[in-house]
Amino acid sequence: MKLVVAGAGGRMGGALIRAIAERDDIVLHAAIERSGSPAIGEDSGERAGIGRNEIAITDDVEGALSSADGLLDFTTPEASLAFARTLAELGRVHVIGTTGFDETHEKALAVAAERAVIVKSGNMSLGVNLLAAMVRRAASALPESFDIEVLEMHHKHKVDAPSGTALLLGEAAAEGRKIVLSENAVRSRDGHTGPRPEGAIGFATLRGGSVVGDHSVILAGAGERITLSHHAEDRAIFARGAVAAALWGHGRQPGLYSMADVLGLND
Amino acid sequence: MKLVVAGAGGRMGGALIRAIAERDDIVLHAAIERSGSPAIGEDSGERAGIGRNEIAITDDVEGALSSADGLLDFTTPEASLAFARTLAELGRVHVIGTTGFDETHEKALAVAAERAVIVKSGNMSLGVNLLAAMVRRAASALPESFDIEVLEMHHKHKVDAPSGTALLLGEAAAEGRKIVLSENAVRSRDGHTGPRPEGAIGFATLRGGSVVGDHSVILAGAGERITLSHHAEDRAIFARGAVAAALWGHGRQPGLYSMADVLGLND
Amino acid sequence: MKLVVAGAGGRMGGALIRAIAERDDIVLHAAIERSGSPAIGEDSGERAGIGRNEIAITDDVEGALSSADGLLDFTTPEASLAFARTLAELGRVHVIGTTGFDETHEKALAVAAERAVIVKSGNMSLGVNLLAAMVRRAASALPESFDIEVLEMHHKHKVDAPSGTALLLGEAAAEGRKIVLSENAVRSRDGHTGPRPEGAIGFATLRGGSVVGDHSVILAGAGERITLSHHAEDRAIFARGAVAAALWGHGRQPGLYSMADVLGLND
Amino acid sequence: MKLVVAGAGGRMGGALIRAIAERDDIVLHAAIERSGSPAIGEDSGERAGIGRNEIAITDDVEGALSSADGLLDFTTPEASLAFARTLAELGRVHVIGTTGFDETHEKALAVAAERAVIVKSGNMSLGVNLLAAMVRRAASALPESFDIEVLEMHHKHKVDAPSGTALLLGEAAAEGRKIVLSENAVRSRDGHTGPRPEGAIGFATLRGGSVVGDHSVILAGAGERITLSHHAEDRAIFARGAVAAALWGHGRQPGLYSMADVLGLND
Repeated sequence: MKLVVAGAGGRMGGALIRAIAERDDIVLHAAIERSGSPAIGEDSGERAGIGRNEIAITDDVEGALSSADGLLDFTTPEASLAFARTLAELGRVHVIGTTGFDETHEKALAVAAERAVIVKSGNMSLGVNLLAAMVRRAASALPESFDIEVLEMHHKHKVDAPSGTALLLGEAAAEGRKIVLSENAVRSRDGHTGPRPEGAIGFATLRGGSVVGDHSVILAGAGERITLSHHAEDRAIFARGAVAAALWGHGRQPGLYSMADVLGLND
Repeated sequence: MKLVVAGAGGRMGGALIRAIAERDDIVLHAAIERSGSPAIGEDSGERAGIGRNEIAITDDVEGALSSADGLLDFTTPEASLAFARTLAELGRVHVIGTTGFDETHEKALAVAAERAVIVKSGNMSLGVNLLAAMVRRAASALPESFDIEVLEMHHKHKVDAPSGTALLLGEAAAEGRKIVLSENAVRSRDGHTGPRPEGAIGFATLRGGSVVGDHSVILAGAGERITLSHHAEDRAIFARGAVAAALWGHGRQPGLYSMADVLGLND
Repeated sequence: MKLVVAGAGGRMGGALIRAIAERDDIVLHAAIERSGSPAIGEDSGERAGIGRNEIAITDDVEGALSSADGLLDFTTPEASLAFARTLAELGRVHVIGTTGFDETHEKALAVAAERAVIVKSGNMSLGVNLLAAMVRRAASALPESFDIEVLEMHHKHKVDAPSGTALLLGEAAAEGRKIVLSENAVRSRDGHTGPRPEGAIGFATLRGGSVVGDHSVILAGAGERITLSHHAEDRAIFARGAVAAALWGHGRQPGLYSMADVLGLND
Repeated sequence: MKLVVAGAGGRMGGALIRAIAERDDIVLHAAIERSGSPAIGEDSGERAGIGRNEIAITDDVEGALSSADGLLDFTTPEASLAFARTLAELGRVHVIGTTGFDETHEKALAVAAERAVIVKSGNMSLGVNLLAAMVRRAASALPESFDIEVLEMHHKHKVDAPSGTALLLGEAAAEGRKIVLSENAVRSRDGHTGPRPEGAIGFATLRGGSVVGDHSVILAGAGERITLSHHAEDRAIFARGAVAAALWGHGRQPGLYSMADVLGLND
């Protein structure tokens, strides 16, 4: 499978180029950047820190995509929409890790997905997506007497809490319970809190060191506890998940898919 | 719901009597023991450590079952089979936590299940059964490049390793992977082991203190790890699971069910 | 060693009576309660749920203490002070798990400790006290670039956060760092927090199920993490720690001691 | 502080060069390799993957050391001994992460340490050394009724079990207990093991994925558990520990020191 990497001069672009180089069943076909980027013309392998691969970073998007099988795209909503239109015409696989789409964007993507395979997710890690599916399941299967808590730890530089992934896991729990997260979330605790509210989904946040990202969902009942955890060692997992999504989408019917589809969790 | 407890003079019987007393939606209807047991005639509540309940332990099985809605039965294969026949005639719910059935027994239970609701499991904890279902799912969804390990810890008095529940979780992983556990299990490691065999399911065993039972299944890939854990605080969870199974079975169509059915995991 | 239990009709008194009954090297000498308690006259073993021990609960404090070797006392500051005066005259061991002393009380206890062995702690568990000592050590030994976080989980009924033990562990960390906890504590996180403040000691609180008490202190540096945890399975550990303190104090020089002394951590 | 890196062309040498580049208070003074190494003449920064630093790898050991303050040395016993002799003459700091010394080597190092500061450890991570000190302390402080278990997890490629660090932690526990590890180690468990032997130190090994190295020591008593854990995210921690050791040794009295000294754990 021949893949193009968008945003090839950036940090995530480099991670995607390294993830492609790890595997034998795919090749980097082209590395693209927005016109005017200082990275244009640089060797994409050297920029990604894996040595020369003789694929220069280019802004010729059409040229790059027309002879490729798919695109890995962690860019901006506007750029992703433009790519989606081109790929729909060409019928190629479009893996979208971009975040920040509004409703208008989502509609335009749905239209593009009538003619192209789009796999889109806010978190491309296989593990986090599997965890979310399992949290939904567990929250649904266990009696409501099991209390649900979401714990996360990230590095000292992270500026918000809880993490987007912690909220995503809380949403999965709320879906499993058929409740609305915002009405049941207890986002932090300090001082006299009173007993735990019935049906609450609690959050707790740790910060420190260089932790890439740890998430646990705890379902605590009378006398027993289930803990479902994900531990990220390395940001490369998001790039590897995108590559897995591209391979999964290759040759599939057009449509708008999620990582849950890639993992076969919606079968 | 009116429930009878078999083996009411024993340790598990006592736990079942306590679990029934915790709830408002069920009552202890009778407490039975084998003829000749020294517990016959004793007050079943006092024996279970919760104070007199005025229900004497009896060996009049038919009398106890004829006016009850179901039986909680953690006894012996022979006793369970006899109960199954009686309950099939009466059309009552039969929750079986007994272990050690052979193939002949299993067939007889299947026959009984044509006329009675039988819920049967080697581990009645809701949490462990949910965990097994999730392990099967995760093992199936994640690429084979994720290595599967099963870790357990029990108290210092436990005489065998790995625990039955660890093996049950290993089986669930093997089913998810569509492999045979016995051909892929690495049950311990010491000395020069060589690199981890492809597709192995590894086990590791900890022993110490008064630990009731901790189990974790780890799925470790390149750069990320999923850990699915169960922590038992209290042996009462097995009794509580049996009670939940009885309530679930009340009014249901005859059949042979598992705790996965009770948890809605087979829907 | 002959021990008296104060507050013998209460929940902690019962736990102390059970902890004494577990061991061969000590005997329950008397079980006392305040005058007017409805428990006076009851068999203390039966009340503690371990069967008759033929030691009736009494309000004759002097009679009980005069021929005993020590007292286990989880009562009120006023009651503990009165006991301390009596025990100072008799030169007996006084194990105090009572909390809520003010400065006047503390001074009176110091006076009593000139003539009696007093072991006093707000948390009598061996494990928690050892953990606190290790947290102090680790916080002092590791460079300040290691970030310190305290995580705790308790059952759904707990009404305040963080737990007293979490704060005690935070204090130990602050002492190790030679900083003031109140000036550096981040007691919860939600929303836009900005990056972690230098030198902060963070807290995170989980609530759910029937968790007796889990505490972890995490020291997170660049590329590595130390986690020091205590897991309580059972409230009996506080009673067992008190018994261990009494045995340690038997025959020792008068003085005011802590559980750190009992553990030999101040040697 | 001006530091020389030995074995600068190798994997650990590169890690040391990167660890020096991270800090402002030290500079890389020279990068040395054995005569004949193909790395001689290469730019040491480029080889370490951090871009040109204009310090070519050289085999002129004397020239490099004579004007430096110290040497970071993860090489072979023979090379380390030769460095030790040179550094003793010059009175420089010698940080030794080399392993495999025999008794003769150890004696020669002791002689060199009469005139130079030598800091030597089989594991230079601050965290692991701190953990070992705490395990020794905890094993000594807690009653023998607490059972000690050592758990480790490493990546799928590791060929032996338990890890050297797990054994080092087991040794620390045995020292704390004043017992001999080899006589009390239970290195794995499978099948009918019988109850846990009194005083045993148990090991359990997990393998999978890309885990850099996780170690936990569990002290499990009746009703409570202490767990002391180290989690390595990154092999860079060994290089960073070596740099910290060099800075600590700068200006200190000659002697043979360990990482416990660097951490102030022997004060």
